[in-house]
Amino acid sequence: MAKMSTIAILVENRPGVLFNVANMFRRRSYNIESISVGPVENTELARMTVSVEADSRELNQIVEQLDKMVDVIKVKRLDPMRSIMREMLLVKLDTGDPMAREETLRHVNARHGLILHIDPECIVAEVTGEPEEIDEFIELTRPIGIEELSRTGITALEKGRLKL
Amino acid sequence: MAKMSTIAILVENRPGVLFNVANMFRRRSYNIESISVGPVENTELARMTVSVEADSRELNQIVEQLDKMVDVIKVKRLDPMRSIMREMLLVKLDTGDPMAREETLRHVNARHGLILHIDPECIVAEVTGEPEEIDEFIELTRPIGIEELSRTGITALEKGRLKL
Repeated sequence: MAKMSTIAILVENRPGVLFNVANMFRRRSYNIESISVGPVENTELARMTVSVEADSRELNQIVEQLDKMVDVIKVKRLDPMRSIMREMLLVKLDTGDPMAREETLRHVNARHGLILHIDPECIVAEVTGEPEEIDEFIELTRPIGIEELSRTGITALEKGRLKL
Repeated sequence: MAKMSTIAILVENRPGVLFNVANMFRRRSYNIESISVGPVENTELARMTVSVEADSRELNQIVEQLDKMVDVIKVKRLDPMRSIMREMLLVKLDTGDPMAREETLRHVNARHGLILHIDPECIVAEVTGEPEEIDEFIELTRPIGIEELSRTGITALEKGRLKL
């Protein structure tokens, strides 16, 4: 059964690397559900977290192919039981009336989120959580009126001494 | 002068789209400093946030090229003064001794971050902020001992009624 899996990739931080990685997924017609990329401590390297729908055999092939790439330093399929998987959401809610404002604050506070901007018509809030928690938050606030949203995609680290 | 700019892109959520976008940046030798991609409400669409080093003229060309792409529904260069730009960091710190644990808690609490996992040897924490604040947090905690870190890259929304 194909299910969502998460892969962490340590790459050289230079032009074309994202292209090469994206090309590998495209050639095999895998849809990248989410991707997040940021520099690591040593700014010559970047860390990508890719979430993709694939069965176990496909996933092994993906990891093998990535591992062969010149720009890829390390690649690892993350075990959900041994990893922390998190995502950030920015959402703009239509809070023209006081009831909507109150409800927005209630939901954001319940998830320990942050109110980042308020004007008479809308509120921009930030919420973090596991991807399913972000989905739930979106469902909860949908009735208020979502003007716009932006998700970071999953980022992940293994627990304890396990390391990419 | 080339400086870091942020572009929001609404795209069709299907295989090959990331490849096409990455290809456009590669052909022009622009290095994507960070990218984050996640589905939007309507799961047939995804929203990408790309941070790239480019001067104003280059940036106009990038937006123009992206706008021509079939899979791109909307593209907008975000004005930093009118936008919320945020990033999430996961960091694993070496907290084998009590002093290191205490210092880690102090830094994470000061930034209203979350402790996501603790074991006898290390702590995994989550912190959000503007990209510069994430840089600062990394500098502050470096002396403790960073085992591993993963950044989501920037995600952004415009303030108020402005919309992609």
